[in-house]
Formats: sequence, C-alpha cells, structure tokens
Amino acid sequence: MLLGRVIGTVVASRKEPLMEGWKLLVVRQVDADNRDAGGYVVAADAVGAGVGEVVLYATGSSARQTELTRDRPCDAVVMAIVDEWEVGGREVYRK
Amino acid sequence: MLLGRVIGTVVASRKEPLMEGWKLLVVRQVDADNRDAGGYVVAADAVGAGVGEVVLYATGSSARQTELTRDRPCDAVVMAIVDEWEVGGREVYRK
Amino acid sequence: MLLGRVIGTVVASRKEPLMEGWKLLVVRQVDADNRDAGGYVVAADAVGAGVGEVVLYATGSSARQTELTRDRPCDAVVMAIVDEWEVGGREVYRK
Amino acid sequence: MLLGRVIGTVVASRKEPLMEGWKLLVVRQVDADNRDAGGYVVAADAVGAGVGEVVLYATGSSARQTELTRDRPCDAVVMAIVDEWEVGGREVYRK
Amino acid sequence: MLLGRVIGTVVASRKEPLMEGWKLLVVRQVDADNRDAGGYVVAADAVGAGVGEVVLYATGSSARQTELTRDRPCDAVVMAIVDEWEVGGREVYRK
Repeated sequence: MLLGRVIGTVVASRKEPLMEGWKLLVVRQVDADNRDAGGYVVAADAVGAGVGEVVLYATGSSARQTELTRDRPCDAVVMAIVDEWEVGGREVYRK
Repeated sequence: MLLGRVIGTVVASRKEPLMEGWKLLVVRQVDADNRDAGGYVVAADAVGAGVGEVVLYATGSSARQTELTRDRPCDAVVMAIVDEWEVGGREVYRK
Repeated sequence: MLLGRVIGTVVASRKEPLMEGWKLLVVRQVDADNRDAGGYVVAADAVGAGVGEVVLYATGSSARQTELTRDRPCDAVVMAIVDEWEVGGREVYRK
Repeated sequence: MLLGRVIGTVVASRKEPLMEGWKLLVVRQVDADNRDAGGYVVAADAVGAGVGEVVLYATGSSARQTELTRDRPCDAVVMAIVDEWEVGGREVYRK
Repeated sequence: MLLGRVIGTVVASRKEPLMEGWKLLVVRQVDADNRDAGGYVVAADAVGAGVGEVVLYATGSSARQTELTRDRPCDAVVMAIVDEWEVGGREVYRK
C-alpha cells in the first residue's frame, strides 16, 4: 500500500456499467516523510474520504478485494483514512 | 486508474484470436494537472472513445474485468470518458 | 499493452517444464512515435513474430490469457503483429 | 521479493473492515548492497517484524498468499525477517 | 520475463511457513546487451541456479505458476538458466 493525499475528484458519466456508484478520487502519492512524491492515481473510494485527507491506497488486483470493487475493473482503491504515522520514532503525521 | 488522452489507434490483423473485435487506442498518460506525463499505453476500448478525448483507463488484471475483455489477454482498458475533474477546488478539465 | 520491436531471441534448455515449446523473443519497447523507449522484455511468442517486426505485447497476469501461456509462468507475451498505427492523424508506422 | 528496512508504523481507525488486525509497517526499500533505494511501501506484517529490522516483502497479488492477508485488499506483505545476505561471496548484512 | 545474473543469496529463518524450502537468490537485472540495468530482485529458485549464472525470471502472479511456488507468497521466480541470447543477429551471451 502507499500513502497519499486526496487532492481532487473525477466525474465520468459514460463508463463501464460496473463502475456505477464509485466516487473517484485523485490521490497524490506522498513519500514516507509526507512530501509530494510526484505520482498520482485515480482511486475508487471505499471509506468515504474527503479532499485533503491522508489515506492509504492499494493498487493492482488487491484493489478489487473490497466490497465496493470486487469483480469490477478497479486497479486502485482508497482503503483507509490515516490517523497517524511514525518514522524513526518521530511522528510524521497526525490527523 | 490513470487519466489519459486518446492520441491514436493501432491496427493488427495477425493476432491472438481472443483479441478479435477490440478497437486498440493509443492513450498518452496525463498528470493530475492535465499535462503530458510522458508514458503511453495501448488499451482496448470498452466505451467507444475517440481520438482527442480524455479518458480513464485501468491496467493489469483489472483491465480484464469488463464485458469486452474478460478472460482475454488484455492488460489495459479504456473504461470511462471523463466529463470533468477538479484538483484543489479548481476545475482542471471539463469536456 | 505496449508496442515493441523484436530484436532477438533467448535459448534456455534448463527451465521450468511448463515453459516447454515457447519461443522466447527479446522485445525492445518503443514509444508512441516508434522511437526506442529504453526498456525491453523477454516475451513468449503467441503469433509467430520474427526479428525486426513491430509487435504488441501484454504483461502481468494478462500474459497468461493465451492458449500458449495459460496457467504457465509467463509474464509477457507477444500477442499481435502490428500492421500500422496512427498518432494525431499521422501514420507513425506501416508494415 | 525485495529487501527493506522497517522504519515506522501507520495507524488507521477508519478503514476497510477486511484490514482489521493488521499491523501496518512503513518499509524503506534497500538495494542489493543494503543502501537506501529511495522507495517505500506500507506493508501488512505477517511475521512480527519490528522497527529497524531488515525484512523481505512481496507485492501485488502474491502479497495475498499468506494466512493474514488471503482474500483481503493487501498489495504488500512483510513475509520474512532476514538473517543474512551475501553478494559476490561477501556478506552484505547479518542480523 | 527479464534477464538477470545471480549475484547472491538471502537467508531468513523467521518467515511465512509457505516459504519453507525455497532457496532465495539475489538477481541483478541486466539489459538486452548484458549490462547491469541497476535493479535487482530476490527470487525463489525453481531450477537450481548458482551464483554467477545468467537466468530468466518472472515476476508478479506469474511467479506463482511453478510447482515450487503455486499458491505461495512469491512474486519473483528464477524459471530458466539461459544458454544463449542474440540481439540483432549478434550473440550477446553464451553460457
């Protein structure tokens, strides 16, 4: 899994029927020190995350192992809202 | 999933029989600000996208979770045509 | 899927039994403008491609969705020989 | 699989129910000479690893092949604590 | 699949039970011209390869399609020892 910050949303009306009901979040990847890491992903939202929140997301086939995404064409899912993380005994982030 | 712009098409007559009927699109990846991100992918078209359109595509095994691609050798699929996306409360793209 | 040019072959006699019968091609990835993209992959040949040909290849679990590779330890397969591709209305390549 | 050093932990209370019970480790990838390789991953801990330990981790669908992670939305798992590794006949690391 | 050179070994006693019996090889990736490509992977050895040998390895779910690794948490497997490869009609490597 990777850490990211929700920075936006995507709307698409013409789409694969199996995507119906997904909220699509633009998630910018952050590094282990909570700095922008450059990349992004568009992920289905399985936990009700909002713009600005720090989240954990999974990619690949593992992104299909949630109730929302099972057997659907999803390769990235926001699966947790992060409360805090520590690196080297130091608190990097606290919600 | 990632955002991309359809920039072209590929034609192949000698191919795996399971690819029959696919329209193959050349999709250039864009970043979260709708700038060229450098990479590209050739994706099967599950939604009738045309050259110039901004789309959402999935890769890996998730690309096989559409009616068009199920159990076929497809590792990239265009699964939605994007209407709009926002980043940081600002509209980045509107169709 | 990605576009590549077949540049060589690999021979291996001591191998996983499930690889028996595969022709192994060295495929150099090309970008959307048919320039060398730097990377390469060794792919099983599902379509009878020869050195010098421009091909389409799939990677990951999707590479196991051909008759040749099903349930075998294959993560890259040449699945089509490209006849032509266009980008921005311009013909980039024709066989 | 890749080698990494456990550098921290992540806590998330609002999450996919299938993640319940996981300890989430921040793992920094190291190269074959045990130097920081730049990347990181957040992995579920299948072996009771602690901060500072050198571990082996798997990614992708293979990360779901442990008792802890089977059929769950996990794309990275710490699957072993490394005792030692050698490169070119030289000991790079010993616990 | 990719080409690599076996450069070392990893030993881990505390590990996922499903890894029991694997020999873990450190494999440095080489490019199509047999030069170091920078990356490495730790792979399970399905063919009895030794340090110094040039091998073919598969990654991702395809790495679980050998007798040694089926249904186990393996994302990289050495599946063949390379006898020779040619690029552009020139022999790049012969064992």
